[in-house]
Amino acid sequence: MAHTVAEALRQEGSGVDRSRRYVVVGAGAVGCYFGGMLARAGFPVTLIGRESHVSAIRHHGLRMETRAFDEQVKVDASTAIDAVADADVVLFCVKSTDSEATARMIAPLLRPGATVLSLQNGVENAEILRCVLTQEVVPTVVYVATEMAGPGHLRHHGRGELVIGEAAAGAVIVADFAAAGVPVQVDANVMGALWAKLIVNCAYNAMSAIAQKPYGELVKVDGIHELMRIVVDECMSIARADGITVPGDPYEAVRRIAQTMAGQYSSTAQDVARGKPNEIDYLNGYVVRRGRVHGIGAPVNQTLLGLVKLVQKA
Amino acid sequence: MAHTVAEALRQEGSGVDRSRRYVVVGAGAVGCYFGGMLARAGFPVTLIGRESHVSAIRHHGLRMETRAFDEQVKVDASTAIDAVADADVVLFCVKSTDSEATARMIAPLLRPGATVLSLQNGVENAEILRCVLTQEVVPTVVYVATEMAGPGHLRHHGRGELVIGEAAAGAVIVADFAAAGVPVQVDANVMGALWAKLIVNCAYNAMSAIAQKPYGELVKVDGIHELMRIVVDECMSIARADGITVPGDPYEAVRRIAQTMAGQYSSTAQDVARGKPNEIDYLNGYVVRRGRVHGIGAPVNQTLLGLVKLVQKA
Repeated sequence: MAHTVAEALRQEGSGVDRSRRYVVVGAGAVGCYFGGMLARAGFPVTLIGRESHVSAIRHHGLRMETRAFDEQVKVDASTAIDAVADADVVLFCVKSTDSEATARMIAPLLRPGATVLSLQNGVENAEILRCVLTQEVVPTVVYVATEMAGPGHLRHHGRGELVIGEAAAGAVIVADFAAAGVPVQVDANVMGALWAKLIVNCAYNAMSAIAQKPYGELVKVDGIHELMRIVVDECMSIARADGITVPGDPYEAVRRIAQTMAGQYSSTAQDVARGKPNEIDYLNGYVVRRGRVHGIGAPVNQTLLGLVKLVQKA
Repeated sequence: MAHTVAEALRQEGSGVDRSRRYVVVGAGAVGCYFGGMLARAGFPVTLIGRESHVSAIRHHGLRMETRAFDEQVKVDASTAIDAVADADVVLFCVKSTDSEATARMIAPLLRPGATVLSLQNGVENAEILRCVLTQEVVPTVVYVATEMAGPGHLRHHGRGELVIGEAAAGAVIVADFAAAGVPVQVDANVMGALWAKLIVNCAYNAMSAIAQKPYGELVKVDGIHELMRIVVDECMSIARADGITVPGDPYEAVRRIAQTMAGQYSSTAQDVARGKPNEIDYLNGYVVRRGRVHGIGAPVNQTLLGLVKLVQKA
């Protein structure tokens, strides 16, 4: 059955040229999901990641455990950043804290015509990469719930779409991902979409980290809905000053997450619990910084930022 | 030696009438300190408190361990609220959360001419007591660092002064405490002094509770000094709107505490750690409530309030 699905995917997208190599830089849960989907559909893919995952993936393939299928997907894996040299398309999936340093590492290795998709939280990563790389960098909004359940073992909880900015390689990338069963939408207002996701992150990530509670628990507590509302107010003022049009209703988007992802702990919560560096400087911290540029206060975001720094071990 | 000090105190204040009975309602660390000092100076004192302390105090006296002395002080102790009936002066030391309920319990027992000193955190307790009691209620600002180190065992770390509001019994109370070695100052602007202390509590209590860190550790973290500055800004705007003149420089007072009490965890931190009810609704919560009355936002105080509610177990 599993084999049949993979075969079906390969046949479905049979008009697509499968010689383009995708290299995932920072193959955590997000990178393994999208890289794994491409590999499963027959694209040459290399996952560059940590020793424990790479070793497991080399021995047994990448285990992709989703609601739809549970397969060992054969895919190249490496701990060496040099493997990025083969890339036609890079899925750049490192933590925001590592963006600049990793970009500097891949800059001398990357083909001139390669395309770099920044599949990262926050809204400034593409800009950071553009300062270091000459290749086309495409801001990408990721909608997926995944986790690494063990070495080389990806667990997928839901969704799996991308929104990418306008790019020369846009049509090709959309077609490749379509052949792999991943919906990709090109959006001229990708920065607005990144901000919309940022706002949800600003409302939930810090609180989930500070209290070490999942989203559904947060909103049960007196006053938290109102604090989240103020977080959105602050973000929207600053987005407006930054010339950003945030699509949809961010207030409603924030309300919905507590229901649709009630059991979810934020990535920041997981990082804090594990004593790992977290992305708060690129979430609430970004909003506070942009607010300062425009002379707009963001006291709730600022308090959440300060308190994450207070509770983090790293 | 210890005996000599007590004797000396008794002689020093020999002009004072020692028939006035002081009853401490809520004999925790604060109540035991001031009640203990009065008992040690020869005043009739009853400590009303919890079984564990009362039992130890009845058997061995109250152990007062200070830098100046370490004595077992003989003092009456009871778990029964009825013991308040003998009081000429009540030192009302319960947590703010218990003010109204405890006031209702003592109301039918208290002598008409008794005086009630509210030795409590927050600024609204005297007002709460006045709604329930017909006796004179005197707002009191407490400056003391004490803890209960065990059953009937008080440990005193520093200070030990009171500032009280203007009261008919003011002069007598000042003289009694003076005879017991406790400096008491009568201040027409006691509400300002209560606010000054409230502001320090607003800056430290919640953060210490949320991070479970002592004051000295908080201010080492990036951005915390600035958050504390905003807390003071918000409090000062609302105090002003409330017609309060806050004495001294509250910004400097907040800065100083991190140095003078670097190892201290806030009472809120201790309550949260023990899963006990805390006073946050009477600290940052009070400021937020008063701000609402005047249409003045207090977003940092509001965030701190919300996050304490998020981390508390009770």
